[in-house]
This record gives sequence, structure tokens and C-alpha cells, in this order.
Amino acid sequence: MKQDQTENPETSHHETIAPSEGYVVGIDIGGTNLRLALADMTGRILARQVSSTAESKSADAVISDIQHCVDKLMREASVPRSELRAVAAAAPGITDVGAGIVIATSYLRGWHDVPLQNMLESSLGVPAIVDNDVNMAAVGERWTGSGKGVRDFVFIAIGTGIGAGVVLNGAPFRGMQWAAGEIGYMLVPGVSSEPAGPGAPGALESMIGGEGIRETWLHKWSPEKTSLPRELTATMIFDGAHAGDPLAQAILHDSAQILSYAIYNISLLLNCPLIVLGGGVGTHPVFYEATQRALEQRRSHSRLQVSRSTLGVDAQLMGAIRLALDTALSRSSVSAPV
Amino acid sequence: MKQDQTENPETSHHETIAPSEGYVVGIDIGGTNLRLALADMTGRILARQVSSTAESKSADAVISDIQHCVDKLMREASVPRSELRAVAAAAPGITDVGAGIVIATSYLRGWHDVPLQNMLESSLGVPAIVDNDVNMAAVGERWTGSGKGVRDFVFIAIGTGIGAGVVLNGAPFRGMQWAAGEIGYMLVPGVSSEPAGPGAPGALESMIGGEGIRETWLHKWSPEKTSLPRELTATMIFDGAHAGDPLAQAILHDSAQILSYAIYNISLLLNCPLIVLGGGVGTHPVFYEATQRALEQRRSHSRLQVSRSTLGVDAQLMGAIRLALDTALSRSSVSAPV
Repeated sequence: MKQDQTENPETSHHETIAPSEGYVVGIDIGGTNLRLALADMTGRILARQVSSTAESKSADAVISDIQHCVDKLMREASVPRSELRAVAAAAPGITDVGAGIVIATSYLRGWHDVPLQNMLESSLGVPAIVDNDVNMAAVGERWTGSGKGVRDFVFIAIGTGIGAGVVLNGAPFRGMQWAAGEIGYMLVPGVSSEPAGPGAPGALESMIGGEGIRETWLHKWSPEKTSLPRELTATMIFDGAHAGDPLAQAILHDSAQILSYAIYNISLLLNCPLIVLGGGVGTHPVFYEATQRALEQRRSHSRLQVSRSTLGVDAQLMGAIRLALDTALSRSSVSAPV
Repeated sequence: MKQDQTENPETSHHETIAPSEGYVVGIDIGGTNLRLALADMTGRILARQVSSTAESKSADAVISDIQHCVDKLMREASVPRSELRAVAAAAPGITDVGAGIVIATSYLRGWHDVPLQNMLESSLGVPAIVDNDVNMAAVGERWTGSGKGVRDFVFIAIGTGIGAGVVLNGAPFRGMQWAAGEIGYMLVPGVSSEPAGPGAPGALESMIGGEGIRETWLHKWSPEKTSLPRELTATMIFDGAHAGDPLAQAILHDSAQILSYAIYNISLLLNCPLIVLGGGVGTHPVFYEATQRALEQRRSHSRLQVSRSTLGVDAQLMGAIRLALDTALSRSSVSAPV
């Protein structure tokens, strides 16, 4: 909805300021880093700030960091604070976009029901919108990345864990409890069908999330099977597979098979033409190519395209800028009659 | 889209006839039976016709049967042919609703690219719409059955095979190649992950479609394991499980587990509040209850409701009547300027 409005900004713009005037800030709240970007009303980035969330895990501390970073961004770009029109923040957890509340995060020591939109609006004095980071990334990819102009696609982020952003009819599809795309729990051949305990990683992510792949490596590692060290990350294991290590190749093969099953299941249900892989693990070229090979066995869905994210770590930030622009245009006259 | 139009019929009505005047016919083309119903503009059924498709498998023969049955319906209800305003037909295969073409069916000896909408419009002289039978059933359930008023739900039909109709934001979501909901191929724990050959049943339906359940029974049957006969249908096997037969109970348990995995995967991706089970196998109360028990193990999705179809074999027909009403209201002045 928002996206359509932006494509015709006049229809949703109720101020005397032209749509091209002003600035927005996109905010990506991650488990380790807080990343911000100031953009003009065309979405061009003018300044960036990165800060750590290692110390400031509470919502209040993060808000204070954001306030600080926004000040720095405005100074750096020589933009008066009065020209900030909206902000959007990506949160690492299930987020009620309508109420502006982060329902739950597994990072940041577990936020629960944090009214992030209100907190941002109070501290910054401009309209704000908040959304789940994977949904934001999907919005970013559709706006200016691998999903550009595609009506229906699914963005699958594979980092430590796994999540998906579902874009249908050109807009994020968020589900009844804002939890659409929680595919880390998906059940496919090769994963455990035992119900996961509370807070435990899901069946799919415990196999092919970065942490799951690392644990499988640890579990299978022995000096007879590999010449690689015992302590490796998922992407290092994929590098090892590329270099010919047999144990790394076996794990790569199994991981790619399992990912191909999940992709296939999604494409069956939605018949979408595109899956975009994101995240540090999901965009690794060796994993990507092995997954493509695994999918080629299922010819009936040969028209399904699988791409890697072109925005990389900027996907969430670009999605946040896009939603901030939409918010600026649709809610710029929050107190004025519509 | 169409559904919204009907909710405000005035906005899409360009004739002098009031929306309440006239009649429509819903048509369900099945692999064994052709079923038709004449309804008034409120959707009330006035007359029905059933005919066999055992002899008339070709599209031309089916059209001729439809023409014949429509004549009988009009006579039976004493409605002049000039008051027929639109028809809608459910086809047992992937259907391009936009072009009005049945792309492929596995029943009726395999139709390919049959321009069913044009054939209906030429032979009956009124606007027609065609859609996949499972999508039609989902429309029917949303209009007047188990999905009444639910924004997002998935209708899973389990008969000989398995298919799903996906309703999102109140409308059928049909996918890029009109193949959304083809979950008969879904890969879950317990099914074969070998790619299915061309024309072969999918991994999921070969396990828990009616034919798959019957074959598992045949394969596992021995006089030591069961006192039931070797030749049984899936629903008879479920009846046997209810009566305490151990082999039938084992097959029921495994089938319900596998169906619960598929339902869980769908609910993860779409976060929809409701799954409606349809079809002769899917609506069997013993199978339904066993599936409910299997799903209860996954508490995190306890807000997911699973219901049985309340329309039963009429679901497709009711969906067809609904789409015929939409078509009558939106395209009643096909040749007049809009």
C-alpha cells in the first residue's frame, strides 16, 4: 500500500512542502551494530553512522544512541534538524508494524513489547515507522536490489539464523501476528521433526543457519576427515569446500540440499518467480552455487530464479530509507486534516 | 479484486438491470462428475444438475454436456435463457484465469491449453470465468463456509491427490504461473526427497493423498498385522483405525504427522490464522482429529486454527457461483462502453 502511494506521491501528500524537500533517516538496529543513513527525498544517501550495540542493549540506550547518531548525521551533511521529515527503524525480531511495537527479539538480550515507534517519535520529533529487519531488507531489495520491480518474491536471510521477507503483489506480506516468513522452523527432509523448545533455534536454522553449520562441523570434525582447523565459521567452511576439503564439501552439499528443499516448498506454495538469498551465509557464492545445482534436479520449477542479494548488508538500511520516505510522504501532516 | 467489487456492486455495474435481477450458473468439472447449479443474484441455489464425465472427457464433449445441463436447469427453474447473466467453471488443473485457459489437467485424460472461457462464452452467449477447482473451493469456503470473513487462510483439498487454494488479503492468491498452492510436491520429513518424474504424483501426495494412503496400506498389509481386507480406500482405512485396527492406526498416525508438517510449514511462511481441510480424505473426522493432535505438539503456533470444510463437495460449486456473480456484476456490459 505504502509503496503504491509513493509511486504516486502527490496522492498521499498533504503538505505545502514539495515531496522533494527534506530528508529522512534509515536505521538498522542489529544485534552487534547500529547503522544509520541520512538520505534526501530521492533516497540518495548523504551520510552514514555506525555504532556498536554491544553495550547499549536496552531500548532506552539504543534510542539514546540513535538520537546521538542522528545529530551527527545532520551536522555532517549540514542539514538543519527541522528538515528531518521521518525515520524508519529495522528491528531484529517480530514487529507489529501497525502498533509500532517490537514484540520480541532474540538479540539485544530479548526485547519484549517495546513501543519503538513511539520512542523514536518522542525522541526525534518526527513520524517514525518500525518493521522487522528481514521485511525491511526485502523492501530494500525490491526498491533498488535483486527484487527490483518483481511483483512476488521471497527474500531469505541466512546469517546466524534464518528468516524470510515475503513480498506479494509488490508489498510486504506480514501475516496475522506479523510473523510471516519465520521459516527458520520449517520442516524439510533431513531436519529434526522434534518440536523445538522455547527459545531454541528452529529445525531448518539449526541445520543451515550459520551457527547450525558451525555446530555440524564441530560435531563431524576429526583430523582423519579434514586438514582444516576445528574452529571455523560457516563461511570459512564453504571456503574450505571450494578449496577441495572433503568434510567441508560434504557439509556444503547437505546444507545446499536442505536449503533447496526449503526454497522449493516456498515456490510451490506461492509460485513466485524469484527467491533472493541474503545474509553473510546465504550470499556466500559457493553455497549459492551448490544450492542452484541442488534445485536444478527439480525441473518442473525451472522458471524459478534464485539470486543473491545485490545490496548485501545495506539491504535493511535501504528498506528503512524507503519506508521512511513512504512515511514522510503519507504522514508528513500527522496533525493536519487529511 | 473481484470480491471487493461485488461487495460494492454499484461501482462495477454498468447496465440498466438492477444487480438483483438475473441468474448465474456455477459449474464444477470433475474427473468423474460434472456438477452445475443455477443461482439467483443473492447466490441462492434454485436448481442442480449432475452428469458423468466418464464418457465425455474431451473439452468439446464437456462443453456440449454443459450446454445441455444449462438448458435443463433453466427449464427446471422456469427461467428464460435471456436472464442468464454469467457462468463460472471450476477446472481440475492449473488454470490461467486472466486468459481463461486451462493449462493442464491430470484428470479428463489430460487437457492442455484448453480455451475454456471462450468455449463457454461462445456456447452459452454470456460472460464466463474459469479457475482451478481448489481455488474455487477456497473462494466458496471464504464466501459461505469455514473461511467466512477470514482475511488470510489456506484451503487444503485432500482427495486422490493434494492441492491448496491460498487466500490472502481476502482474495485468491494464484501466483505467477497460476500454480500457487501446488503443495502436493511439498518436501517434509518422512517423504521421499527424490525428484518426482514427469506426471508422477508429488512427494507429499504420494504419502498422504488418498491414492498414496491406499498404496501404503497395500504395501504394508499382511494377515498377521491386520484383520481388515487388503483392498481398502483411504477413508475405509481411517474407519478401521477408529475401530482399533493396529495397522490402520499406524498409517493414520504417520499420515497425520506428515500432514501436520505441511500445515506447519504453510503457517510459518504465511502466518495465517486458519487452515481449512477439504476433500473426501481431508475432511474425514478421524484423520482431522489425528492431525490436530500432531499439531498440538508445536505450541508456538497454537493460535493456528485448523477446521474442516463445512461446504464439502459443494465448495467448488459455491466458489463458482460466487465468481459467476462477480463476473455478472463486473462484466455484464461486455460490449458497452465502461
